[in-house]
Amino acid sequence: MINKSYLILLILVPLLGISQTEDEKQLKEIYTSSLTEGKSYSWLDYLSNKIGGRLSGSFNAEQAVEYTKNELESLDLDRVWLQPVMVPKWTRGIKEYAYIENAPGNTNAVNVCALGGSIATPEGGLKANVIEVQGLEELKELGEEKIKGKIVFYNRPMQVDVIQTFEAYGGCVDQRYSGAEEAAKYGAVGVIVRSMNLRLDEFPHTGSMSYGDLPVNKRIPAAAISTKGAELLSSLLALNNDLKFYFRQTCKVFPDVKSYNVIGEVKGSTFPNEIITVGGHLDSWDLGDGSHDDGAGCVQSMEVLRLLKQTGYKPKRTIRVVLFMNEENGLRGANKYAEVAKEKGENHIFALESDAGGFTPRGFSFDCDDANFSQITSWKPLFKPYLIHFFEKGGSGADVGPLKGDGTVLAGLRPDSQRYFDHHHAENDTFEHVNKRELELGAATMTSLIYLIDKYGTINTSKIKG
Amino acid sequence: MINKSYLILLILVPLLGISQTEDEKQLKEIYTSSLTEGKSYSWLDYLSNKIGGRLSGSFNAEQAVEYTKNELESLDLDRVWLQPVMVPKWTRGIKEYAYIENAPGNTNAVNVCALGGSIATPEGGLKANVIEVQGLEELKELGEEKIKGKIVFYNRPMQVDVIQTFEAYGGCVDQRYSGAEEAAKYGAVGVIVRSMNLRLDEFPHTGSMSYGDLPVNKRIPAAAISTKGAELLSSLLALNNDLKFYFRQTCKVFPDVKSYNVIGEVKGSTFPNEIITVGGHLDSWDLGDGSHDDGAGCVQSMEVLRLLKQTGYKPKRTIRVVLFMNEENGLRGANKYAEVAKEKGENHIFALESDAGGFTPRGFSFDCDDANFSQITSWKPLFKPYLIHFFEKGGSGADVGPLKGDGTVLAGLRPDSQRYFDHHHAENDTFEHVNKRELELGAATMTSLIYLIDKYGTINTSKIKG
Repeated sequence: MINKSYLILLILVPLLGISQTEDEKQLKEIYTSSLTEGKSYSWLDYLSNKIGGRLSGSFNAEQAVEYTKNELESLDLDRVWLQPVMVPKWTRGIKEYAYIENAPGNTNAVNVCALGGSIATPEGGLKANVIEVQGLEELKELGEEKIKGKIVFYNRPMQVDVIQTFEAYGGCVDQRYSGAEEAAKYGAVGVIVRSMNLRLDEFPHTGSMSYGDLPVNKRIPAAAISTKGAELLSSLLALNNDLKFYFRQTCKVFPDVKSYNVIGEVKGSTFPNEIITVGGHLDSWDLGDGSHDDGAGCVQSMEVLRLLKQTGYKPKRTIRVVLFMNEENGLRGANKYAEVAKEKGENHIFALESDAGGFTPRGFSFDCDDANFSQITSWKPLFKPYLIHFFEKGGSGADVGPLKGDGTVLAGLRPDSQRYFDHHHAENDTFEHVNKRELELGAATMTSLIYLIDKYGTINTSKIKG
Repeated sequence: MINKSYLILLILVPLLGISQTEDEKQLKEIYTSSLTEGKSYSWLDYLSNKIGGRLSGSFNAEQAVEYTKNELESLDLDRVWLQPVMVPKWTRGIKEYAYIENAPGNTNAVNVCALGGSIATPEGGLKANVIEVQGLEELKELGEEKIKGKIVFYNRPMQVDVIQTFEAYGGCVDQRYSGAEEAAKYGAVGVIVRSMNLRLDEFPHTGSMSYGDLPVNKRIPAAAISTKGAELLSSLLALNNDLKFYFRQTCKVFPDVKSYNVIGEVKGSTFPNEIITVGGHLDSWDLGDGSHDDGAGCVQSMEVLRLLKQTGYKPKRTIRVVLFMNEENGLRGANKYAEVAKEKGENHIFALESDAGGFTPRGFSFDCDDANFSQITSWKPLFKPYLIHFFEKGGSGADVGPLKGDGTVLAGLRPDSQRYFDHHHAENDTFEHVNKRELELGAATMTSLIYLIDKYGTINTSKIKG
């Protein structure tokens, strides 16, 4: 049996041959324009330094909605609109405080931060003995006898010898997300989770957690501790198993509030009903200013439409930039966008997300069938001058995920990941850690792929109409 | 005619087939060991934070010689030694001072630093009118009439839309290196050169310059100005062509002093006379602590020998780490090493340099013939799990350059280059801008290539003895 994708390539190759030079030229213009007259960096400057952290339901998040809507309107697109969505509202309260008590009067202060979604400690804080575990498995092995009345300290580090850091994150994040829910079942009074950080430093890293269907009166407070704090706590526990840990946090859940996805669109000239989405998430955690996660992805996505326009390209298909609200602690914006798309019977052929930081782009990962993957990888040589080499099957992005189905090709930008978890969800996710060129190269790389997808279509459509 | 490299591949491929798994295993061990028990980062911490900038002839440079010799000795190599070499000694003196004088009493201070090798200004500083040029060509067009008595301001920026930043550097650095010599020929009294920096910031970037064979009494002082300072000066000149520029620097050239290349060696078990060199340069500019340029390359090169040992690999060929002295302003160490090698009739089959920063490694560039390039690129698949994709013909490194000839294969590590010129030769080339993982990945990538070269040899030798 001849592979279907080969047949398609046989049809496409001559086409590609003819327009290779045109494509090379277009990519060159895109990269040059991004690096010489790009707007992504100044947009990010505003989002990060004038607005700051943009947690769902916060005033900053609303400011970010307004700012990006205005900026998209200034690009003279065919349509810019806000898509309403109800989002959770959780607030951190006053700065958390924690210490290790070796003996009464003998304490070491450590840096912690409440995990997103956690309840507060009692007003005067929470102090208890600590049991250190390497994860949810060990928790179960220990059982209620060893855990009841204690603070569970999840200390499994991210695995440093994994090359792609998102894999190391995936190998640890269950402690953060489900640690409190599971520990509560065995009678723990609180949980402290080692920050998802490959470095040893003093920054605690927040992130979402869930109590699952635990009843409200069974819920226990959960905080992240910096990696240096975790090392200290672990080594002191080895010396004194009876030490106590104290932490205090005043976080709170409020009723859901109304917020928005921000959407801008250029109508396709030939296939207006085929929709290509490119986006990032506008909300961020509150500790830093959300520059890498995911201010970068938002401004790069906005830049895609600007660069296509500036280089004089007229899209054949409809291209939408979507700045999703509430990726971090609910994914409500992403679900709303997909829900509305379904209701309207929209034909989403392709969706690309940038949510892995504003670092040097290395390529993309694709969630699609073999035929589409073959077509896309046939474009690899066009990207070589820009050192874009990574084209692999894999995940895409949390926000574009809900669009999956009906042959939609999903993709995620893959920047260099080595520094990402130094900053992720922490106080040091700030503007000065984003390099202008790296951000702009990412925007150009995304724009180049969107251009090629728009021009050649995806396989389902291009065979018939492309 | 059948390409010679094909024939060699025909011989090699079955060999490669057999040991593919062994090579995969060895590379995995190298990377794991570098990321979990690497020493490169703590060595760099010492070099950068305990010693600091290491300009040739300085006390710090001598401390660095001693420190790295001791550390190499602790690795239990077959031999560690110092290779004496006379190096230039230039000192910056007190911090430079400069301002733009729009009118008497109306001044803007700007950040400048003396270029390495420059003479001082007169003791009270130098003040003169300014003529802005885009480079050496424009200088010649303007001629003596327009230049005499003035300060020449070289303001050609690095080209931002060049993807590989070293190319952009290459397109500008003639202003810095030869700017004073050329301007002096037309009667200029001093030169100010825009810093070789792709960002707009306040750091002046030093670097070497030369007066060529200009007589001593014709030499004029040369300084670099920060990119923001350059933009300010240029825009003020556009408003007031008659403004004056003042700068003061007290730098000085002393007679040459004795210094050393630091060398460590493991003797080959099978072909001890075939020498593989891996190195970086131990000297650095004085403004920062020389972490990226080139502390990183030094500790990575030391780590190559340590990782081979730690993973239990016994080299067939002799492997040397060389920490070259005086790359920045003389290349005396590199020339000495090559000179001694020649005197002794040593057979250098391969030399690798790391001198492009401690950023995420992307691959290598090779200065070699087609046959060797074919052999090396046949190893590309082994590097794929580590996201190493860049194998191109091109330059190698300044320090290994003098070994060229007699079929020696030269190579340079190619890390991601986007951030390099943010720090290069400036006050902000400091330890906190080096990421531990990125540094360690670079060391592992170098070690992997050295392992493969050691095992399979280069083409000249492997055909006969490999």
